[in-house]
Amino acid sequence: MEDVKLLGTWASPFSYRVIWALKLKGIDYEYIEQDLSNKSPLLLQSNPVHKKIPVLIHSGKPISESMIILRYLDESWPENYPLLPADPYERAVARFWIKFAEEKLTSAFAIFRTSGEEQEKAVKESLEVMKTLEEHAFGLLLLQEKAFFGGDKVNMVDLAYGVMGYWLDAVEDCTGVKLMDPLKFPLFHGWVNRFNEAPVIKDNLPDREELFAYFKRRREMIVSATSS
Amino acid sequence: MEDVKLLGTWASPFSYRVIWALKLKGIDYEYIEQDLSNKSPLLLQSNPVHKKIPVLIHSGKPISESMIILRYLDESWPENYPLLPADPYERAVARFWIKFAEEKLTSAFAIFRTSGEEQEKAVKESLEVMKTLEEHAFGLLLLQEKAFFGGDKVNMVDLAYGVMGYWLDAVEDCTGVKLMDPLKFPLFHGWVNRFNEAPVIKDNLPDREELFAYFKRRREMIVSATSS
Repeated sequence: MEDVKLLGTWASPFSYRVIWALKLKGIDYEYIEQDLSNKSPLLLQSNPVHKKIPVLIHSGKPISESMIILRYLDESWPENYPLLPADPYERAVARFWIKFAEEKLTSAFAIFRTSGEEQEKAVKESLEVMKTLEEHAFGLLLLQEKAFFGGDKVNMVDLAYGVMGYWLDAVEDCTGVKLMDPLKFPLFHGWVNRFNEAPVIKDNLPDREELFAYFKRRREMIVSATSS
Repeated sequence: MEDVKLLGTWASPFSYRVIWALKLKGIDYEYIEQDLSNKSPLLLQSNPVHKKIPVLIHSGKPISESMIILRYLDESWPENYPLLPADPYERAVARFWIKFAEEKLTSAFAIFRTSGEEQEKAVKESLEVMKTLEEHAFGLLLLQEKAFFGGDKVNMVDLAYGVMGYWLDAVEDCTGVKLMDPLKFPLFHGWVNRFNEAPVIKDNLPDREELFAYFKRRREMIVSATSS
């Protein structure tokens, strides 16, 4: 058996990106839950620059950042369920949308941490990002008659945007902000529903009630800290 | 001959990343200078999402974002001067530092666009980023007794940080802010000097006087716009 460990936290969408890739590729691994309020020596030593999860440790060698871990898994286990297209041009297009996810989805999660004017700014930014995705990314899927970026099954681009399912719902629930309007973003909304029901993904999502309760508690702590 | 076009602007460090990669790989290309104050239909149609340079157009197919272009070049011309290590783990480490460059070097360029408190914040952030690089990235080179991230020649990581040579000098010159202190960042400083003198790089840099004059004019426009 391969020596693969994953340092993560149960409610993190970024941990789930790695879990999905490991499960899709059928790689056995040991999951080690981290307490970010009291960071373990293993985490600090494995990711000394950012000190963040997820970290994958393969035969003692640590790799940080969820999308970099996914590329590593894809290059180290190229035969099991390839996560990127084979053609260099299609790979470049996939990377373009992965980079867009890495840079732009943060505004949706900023809504969770902010209030008032700052939150309004994050809402405005998120809606612009979602509009661009609706037109250019999910619009392309429609044109190509694809269910997922990987065609009839999910690939690395789908995993990058998977955070916009359960976790966006949780952010909307605890803040009262509604971003995912099925009338405004019908293609994006349709993709989220398909993603949540896709093989492997559907069986590897956190418990919805627990996730919502956790986000609610965290949100209450943030609001009481900023209003006192 | 391959049909390769590069849309860029002469003073952009991000255009130069692509130029360096094309030259290192010995790929012939047509360079098409862009006027960003009056964007060409070709640019708008090639990069409809960001509307930014550089864009590479290979046989009619456009690819945006400098580091994504470099990966495309490396995958499409794998035999000519590979830009990433062959080993998956070393590739992951290289990608970690490339992502760090993409996310963190912007603060150094923010100094150019800002004044007062906002500029002080950007200076503080830049110095922290440079400290991390000195310790973790350039420190690793020292440990491994390497001149460049690519060993004895430059690779994709070196090209990502190449913007911290001429262009940081130009930002320092026109703002009066000094970031690159050789006593504080001796390893980083030494690498910059080696990079600027490396084969291919040294012959493909903008004219220093022209670059400094251009940054000075642009800076004066920014300062007069914000102080009026």
